Amino acid sequence: MNAQTYQRRLAKCGEHMANLGIDVLLLTKPSNMFYLTGDGRLCAYAMITQAGKVALGVPVTDIEDVKALAYHDHIVGFDDEVGMIHSIAHYFQHFGISKGMVGLEYTFLTQSMMAMMTHPHAKPEGVTHQDCTHILSEMRMVKEPEEIERIRAAAKVADIGMDAAIKAVKPGMTESQVAAAAEFAMRNAGAEEFWRTYVASGPRTNIAHGLPTNRKIEKDELVMVDIHPIVNNYSADICRTVCAGKPTAEQQKAYDLYLDAQQSTIRMIRAGVGMVDLETHIHQVLEDGGHGDHIFGPPIHGLGIEFEEAPLPPGHAFFHGEKAPPPLPENVVLSVGNCGLYAGPWGVRVEDTNWVKADGYETLTRYPRRLAK
Amino acid sequence: MNAQTYQRRLAKCGEHMANLGIDVLLLTKPSNMFYLTGDGRLCAYAMITQAGKVALGVPVTDIEDVKALAYHDHIVGFDDEVGMIHSIAHYFQHFGISKGMVGLEYTFLTQSMMAMMTHPHAKPEGVTHQDCTHILSEMRMVKEPEEIERIRAAAKVADIGMDAAIKAVKPGMTESQVAAAAEFAMRNAGAEEFWRTYVASGPRTNIAHGLPTNRKIEKDELVMVDIHPIVNNYSADICRTVCAGKPTAEQQKAYDLYLDAQQSTIRMIRAGVGMVDLETHIHQVLEDGGHGDHIFGPPIHGLGIEFEEAPLPPGHAFFHGEKAPPPLPENVVLSVGNCGLYAGPWGVRVEDTNWVKADGYETLTRYPRRLAK
Repeated sequence: MNAQTYQRRLAKCGEHMANLGIDVLLLTKPSNMFYLTGDGRLCAYAMITQAGKVALGVPVTDIEDVKALAYHDHIVGFDDEVGMIHSIAHYFQHFGISKGMVGLEYTFLTQSMMAMMTHPHAKPEGVTHQDCTHILSEMRMVKEPEEIERIRAAAKVADIGMDAAIKAVKPGMTESQVAAAAEFAMRNAGAEEFWRTYVASGPRTNIAHGLPTNRKIEKDELVMVDIHPIVNNYSADICRTVCAGKPTAEQQKAYDLYLDAQQSTIRMIRAGVGMVDLETHIHQVLEDGGHGDHIFGPPIHGLGIEFEEAPLPPGHAFFHGEKAPPPLPENVVLSVGNCGLYAGPWGVRVEDTNWVKADGYETLTRYPRRLAK
Repeated sequence: MNAQTYQRRLAKCGEHMANLGIDVLLLTKPSNMFYLTGDGRLCAYAMITQAGKVALGVPVTDIEDVKALAYHDHIVGFDDEVGMIHSIAHYFQHFGISKGMVGLEYTFLTQSMMAMMTHPHAKPEGVTHQDCTHILSEMRMVKEPEEIERIRAAAKVADIGMDAAIKAVKPGMTESQVAAAAEFAMRNAGAEEFWRTYVASGPRTNIAHGLPTNRKIEKDELVMVDIHPIVNNYSADICRTVCAGKPTAEQQKAYDLYLDAQQSTIRMIRAGVGMVDLETHIHQVLEDGGHGDHIFGPPIHGLGIEFEEAPLPPGHAFFHGEKAPPPLPENVVLSVGNCGLYAGPWGVRVEDTNWVKADGYETLTRYPRRLAK
């Protein structure tokens, strides 16, 4: 991304801030900092004024690295938390903000981090704070062409990772070894990083977040693999369920139902459709198939810099400090199939990354969808 | 761990709660839930009474899985966030707590999660809250024999991962590919999971948190590898710096200095020594070597279920909501070498996992420490 990209985003951000009466943002969430400046990292912060000025605070060791990556007007290095707090106070003074409103990320800051950011040695007493989560979420929700291309690149790596994982699924292999195969393949295919890998087998295919364990896969068990490579700072999301042998008729039937629910929901995607319409549809198909009580979690979510970001379905959004999403604009990217079907001592799930277009959609993850290997 | 282990821990926890006037803990941090019950996972909570009663709330899909893993008196499944909130209210009612004090993890809960946990539909109006971070940190700081053995097992896997990483360090390999080699080896050696892998090369060896990128290693550059396998729910921490070719005399000198600082600090370890003594010593050696201004981050931290946990040095501890650590009791496990030496366009770091004993220490990570490959 070039300087014009960040200037355009910062100008847009300034409009949101003005509308909400926010004088300055104090960001610490890496994905939000990355979106507005080109660099996001732990133990750092970005102050963003309404006028689009960017003041960064980073570990003193990281100054040269950040300078080369981030669009910014000011940068300061700190030695420790005390230095960080003082540098924030300095920027407030530099920008002449002694009263007014600072926007903080309530969905990211822990209570202790909040105490640091609003410490009397950091934030002027006359400055109050409000949540700014939704400003960045709303901006990041609609992707620019270069962002779509990066997600497309991540989706290709996701397909490669899934291929390696599915090939590794064999009786006797542990869930962790299947995860290893996927992660190794993704990094070697160009992922600089990945989000949490889920691999769950047998009865564990039922659980909501199947982090891999050393459980050995047994013959004829189902195995669920859910992976999220990061390529050039953008993510993709794919999940497949396969059988390490021969699935039962009941398993195949549940799988076919889930796949139909997921694929028919994807076919509804186009600009103007609502998240609720999509959510209602996928739930309805599963309910009509007799599994209305066997689903968990939001079936659809956005992705981009993070593998799960706005838009989220309204109920879920509320609890995550996000606003209910509007009818989908074009160039949102959606993951569909995030809710599993939990049928008893096993479950099935199929999830894909989709680009919302004016008149339809494109599914970016393409690994074959079939229960039998 | 058996039921007696959890009963003993819960009784101890109840004593801390009584001393602080806390009637019930409402925990959501997986590591804390794991310590007191044997299971910790995302999107779940544990309510712990002074009398040691354990009430769990988990995704409805996860009930059978948690039942098999967790010591508990009550368990309830919820469908979504609304169900979760109502189940918390139900437990408050069940335990007859309509006023009093609930302990919450201020170092883990975001503002939005805090809003859920203290929502009027969850927490009775007459119940106030305070931070309970330090109760669990203090308990977890001193390890039981079985915990030490699990950390020892993780340290062996860390050595195996480091060996794979160092073998992968070659000009033309990316940082991400080196990370892939380490992670693949750790999972295949028995790690069910790992914490964030750091691999940084060339000028990036300077930065505080060197997450891998697609930067290609060049001949004669330094490469820093910092890995953290999880084996049977316990972690180890090891960092090595090597040269992809021939180090300069200046680099070798800085490395030798750092290694001396780290090793002489480790030799001071025994029950009764203070974290400040250790921190002061490592800083002093580096300062005497002319690099007093080239260090960043707490040089020493505890580890166990998490790869970074109590004890932390006092300054760092304060900002993480932890109490300043006491003189070290025996059976603490310490990682020494967490601060790098950042000498200019490169840096060096060596870190090892150590068991604090009554009359000395045992270093659990043993991979050779040398700059030249």
